[in-house]
Amino acid sequence: MSVTKRSKKVPLADLPYVGRGTLAGDWFRRHWLVVGTSNELRDIPQAVKVLGEELVLFRDDQGRIGLLGLYCPHRGTSLEYGDIEDGGIRCPYHGWLFDVDGQCLAMPGEPAERGFAEKVRHLSYPVQEQGGLLFAYLGSDAEAPPLPRYLPLVSEQGQRSLEATRLYNYNWFNFIENGADPVHFSILHRADPNDGTWRSWFFDFRDVPQFDAVEMPYGMKVISRKPGPTVGTEYVDEKSFALPAILQIGDTEFTHLRQPREALAAGSHNAHLMFVTPNDDASFTLYTVNHYTGPDNEFFAKLAPSRRVQAPMEKMPYDRREFSPFRGNVRTEDIACQATQKLLGERCEQLATSDRGVIMLRKLILSDIESVRRGGQPRALENAQSHGGLVKIDSFTGVRAKGLD
Amino acid sequence: MSVTKRSKKVPLADLPYVGRGTLAGDWFRRHWLVVGTSNELRDIPQAVKVLGEELVLFRDDQGRIGLLGLYCPHRGTSLEYGDIEDGGIRCPYHGWLFDVDGQCLAMPGEPAERGFAEKVRHLSYPVQEQGGLLFAYLGSDAEAPPLPRYLPLVSEQGQRSLEATRLYNYNWFNFIENGADPVHFSILHRADPNDGTWRSWFFDFRDVPQFDAVEMPYGMKVISRKPGPTVGTEYVDEKSFALPAILQIGDTEFTHLRQPREALAAGSHNAHLMFVTPNDDASFTLYTVNHYTGPDNEFFAKLAPSRRVQAPMEKMPYDRREFSPFRGNVRTEDIACQATQKLLGERCEQLATSDRGVIMLRKLILSDIESVRRGGQPRALENAQSHGGLVKIDSFTGVRAKGLD
Amino acid sequence: MSVTKRSKKVPLADLPYVGRGTLAGDWFRRHWLVVGTSNELRDIPQAVKVLGEELVLFRDDQGRIGLLGLYCPHRGTSLEYGDIEDGGIRCPYHGWLFDVDGQCLAMPGEPAERGFAEKVRHLSYPVQEQGGLLFAYLGSDAEAPPLPRYLPLVSEQGQRSLEATRLYNYNWFNFIENGADPVHFSILHRADPNDGTWRSWFFDFRDVPQFDAVEMPYGMKVISRKPGPTVGTEYVDEKSFALPAILQIGDTEFTHLRQPREALAAGSHNAHLMFVTPNDDASFTLYTVNHYTGPDNEFFAKLAPSRRVQAPMEKMPYDRREFSPFRGNVRTEDIACQATQKLLGERCEQLATSDRGVIMLRKLILSDIESVRRGGQPRALENAQSHGGLVKIDSFTGVRAKGLD
Repeated sequence: MSVTKRSKKVPLADLPYVGRGTLAGDWFRRHWLVVGTSNELRDIPQAVKVLGEELVLFRDDQGRIGLLGLYCPHRGTSLEYGDIEDGGIRCPYHGWLFDVDGQCLAMPGEPAERGFAEKVRHLSYPVQEQGGLLFAYLGSDAEAPPLPRYLPLVSEQGQRSLEATRLYNYNWFNFIENGADPVHFSILHRADPNDGTWRSWFFDFRDVPQFDAVEMPYGMKVISRKPGPTVGTEYVDEKSFALPAILQIGDTEFTHLRQPREALAAGSHNAHLMFVTPNDDASFTLYTVNHYTGPDNEFFAKLAPSRRVQAPMEKMPYDRREFSPFRGNVRTEDIACQATQKLLGERCEQLATSDRGVIMLRKLILSDIESVRRGGQPRALENAQSHGGLVKIDSFTGVRAKGLD
Repeated sequence: MSVTKRSKKVPLADLPYVGRGTLAGDWFRRHWLVVGTSNELRDIPQAVKVLGEELVLFRDDQGRIGLLGLYCPHRGTSLEYGDIEDGGIRCPYHGWLFDVDGQCLAMPGEPAERGFAEKVRHLSYPVQEQGGLLFAYLGSDAEAPPLPRYLPLVSEQGQRSLEATRLYNYNWFNFIENGADPVHFSILHRADPNDGTWRSWFFDFRDVPQFDAVEMPYGMKVISRKPGPTVGTEYVDEKSFALPAILQIGDTEFTHLRQPREALAAGSHNAHLMFVTPNDDASFTLYTVNHYTGPDNEFFAKLAPSRRVQAPMEKMPYDRREFSPFRGNVRTEDIACQATQKLLGERCEQLATSDRGVIMLRKLILSDIESVRRGGQPRALENAQSHGGLVKIDSFTGVRAKGLD
Repeated sequence: MSVTKRSKKVPLADLPYVGRGTLAGDWFRRHWLVVGTSNELRDIPQAVKVLGEELVLFRDDQGRIGLLGLYCPHRGTSLEYGDIEDGGIRCPYHGWLFDVDGQCLAMPGEPAERGFAEKVRHLSYPVQEQGGLLFAYLGSDAEAPPLPRYLPLVSEQGQRSLEATRLYNYNWFNFIENGADPVHFSILHRADPNDGTWRSWFFDFRDVPQFDAVEMPYGMKVISRKPGPTVGTEYVDEKSFALPAILQIGDTEFTHLRQPREALAAGSHNAHLMFVTPNDDASFTLYTVNHYTGPDNEFFAKLAPSRRVQAPMEKMPYDRREFSPFRGNVRTEDIACQATQKLLGERCEQLATSDRGVIMLRKLILSDIESVRRGGQPRALENAQSHGGLVKIDSFTGVRAKGLD
């Protein structure tokens, strides 16, 4: 390979950066990204930052959803303070009115007969709703590609539950790598070995399960295994990463609920899906959906208190650590580890064999960025197209016959 | 016009910057600026930032007011912690004592017979008091020009009331432009059309008044008009901008007090004068004087509660906007709009015909900066000189015969 | 002297900077520095910043103390959140375990038979305990020099008391200069002349004592004098600066306790020793030891309340000064003066004869940095070696025969 070709490769250190004109940023702009939820978008405009762009999200008085540039094109005031009325959002300062497509509808200070308003069109991005999530497309294509239909969001079977949106103050990639890293479960999230949860004995610190990293059309999955209760069976924990930045795990109830091992025969019935949207290089937002397809009508009502039980222990007076107390709560444990990592490319690393999932994930993203840069389709869109627009992501927890990947 | 000449013009994007050596900063340094108030300057030194310079303002034990460099010339300790005693301000660290002219009077650690003290003179700027405001001159001229006498500050008629000094955390120019922009009154400050205030029906959102922008010797004024109650009369609202950074409006009581339209026949009797002093490129201080010349001896006592009534409504729990709640209070409405604008030159703009006041204001300042740079006198000083030092600024609210500009 | 030689001199403006590769930073790295205290190091790791390096200090389950790089060499997570167990500190994320020498002992996710762990060694610095203080050596020498034995820390006579560790948010040098600057005592710390303390009449504002600055093998001392009670005697206050950044004063109890002048005949019996460790260019930590060798068994119990009595007065509502109230408490008085000084080299200065102590201190440090840069031994180590490793620093307060320096 010539030096020229090599120098064109996407460097690992570029992955964290998502602004317009960056390699990862331009790649993200070829995908629909979650920018809000139906529930949380109420009667006032929301300022949102997506891939470093300052935008305003609002639902107009006819129920249409708009995503426009945050600053009014007239004199630059923030539309976050705008009034939602008369078929659009009205700048608070001089009343310019924009519809969800960015078209200016009125300028109260200007003579109406001059028709200035119709000549002004503000930056706008298309938004679509799916299963309670609001997806936007920030690309500059003349026409946005179809929004993939994510099975847990569009399925009419089972029960669906959205968690409250969470903002994280560190780089998106520090979080996303976690999805291809099953080993940290046995260490960081190690539980009392006698607490009766799947997590406590399957992800045992003293007996870390074997795992494989497997490439999939939508991205990849990591499969952790231990010998099953009978010959020819195995305990399996399967988690997926889907392009561009989606994680799906299947063990939510086994992680949090105490239950006999026999219950595992039926497998987990809950897919726990996390959509990651970078706000900028230093923060991201997490949109989480649970899709339960088992027989228990009270499932979500039972799961909620078990999460609350995991309250972190009290903090000692001499403990000045920013993220403490963190032990005992899976989410704060992850935050303490990931938020203290520096940016990829700025931290020192010494990877080992157990990082093979992480390494595969990095290569997957890098090669997709490279392929898109050379004019190709994003793999996530190709995968959706080849399944009629439907995206199905694997996750599994429980007992099954060996060799059933 | 040659390219050379054109390139010498003051660019609009330079207007926000006020540090020493900037075009706007050097122009401001040719004017007296308000740096404090008599009432608020007590028995301790005040650190003040003016045009990016760190200074200390104090009143010595003989009542003289000094404005010196903030850092002691000896070893750099802040004189904000100094002691006011023995005819000056004494550095807390080693006791060097400076009078209001910056002259060092004593060095307690040095042998007095050597006379070191008399050789040291610290940076100082002249300060003058007028109507309760403290004006300073930060220019480097051998002698400061005379302080203009502002009519509302020096008049012996009527009643005068100073408001508490207010600090704003955005660029001075975003605020000052408001003074040449009558349209925002009908939009941003639109009131319930039935609330009985002048503001509610004169600055009606659905029937925005016509306005003219008129250049004046002291700067400019904008005159908004609507047909009056009888033939040959008109309702008028007149506001002024005076160089370098002063606004005057005349409608204070009609904005805030409910009263019958008949009351307007007498016109407003209150001039509401705002002196803007840039602290640096990101903040400014507002010194506000009301000068009432009407017959009501209780005028200020009545106005105060009407301002308090405008308390903003409650904030919804999901409303995370920095400046919210802002609706219903003219001042917080202005802040929400102006603080979210980026710096002039960094924001995108699309000006329209209703910005003709703003455009005139920008040109006025730019051409005065240009003229001063070429060796001319600031127009504000020329204007004062030509009126024997007295500055009278127009403002009006009420009914009057047509054509009386 | 040739221009070339001159340009090689260490500039004064370089003194404040302590990062790796700076002149002062590399010089500090040739000395043992205090990085913590035995009392305050408990069962959780402590993130510490020393000379700009981010490190983690911990005591392992066998009582050994380690100082390692803060970020795990595997994937960069902060070891501040690590678990102290199994003979070392374990990264919370993937469980890599390091002993106090930085040797990796285990990688739970890796096959043990491969022996990866033994090939990884993390950044570590040696730590030694002395008199309750934890000293570390951040140099890159193959072997650290012996830790000097500071008399007040190793003496088996008298009583020793460590104060709580204090963090200061300004440059280390602004503080250290204070130790060669006796004049500020008469100004900044001036007390009611009738309050009965040594400070009140010896360091009298209207009668500042004479002082000499004297170079010593360990650094320097400043000796302030006033005529004594009888012929041939004098009142003396002697304070020392020892390289690299240690201050010792002897007047603690006379500063704080009211007592008859006759008591001075016996001299002060308390050495008040302050070890300064720069955290970075903007902050330092102060470790303070009192060593009392007098006859009073209740000495420290009496001293503590006298310090508390010096509570600063109430703050006025209009007093917005960051460090106010500061008057009446020696420590906050120092902070107000030193924290507002800019960095040496960035502040303007006009030194006078009473700064001769400060000037000597600057020259001492600059010439030691210069000598170390040319390959020499730090003077502090040479001094310790020539006294069999023992460091004895002078301080005195009281009456003594003239000429006894």
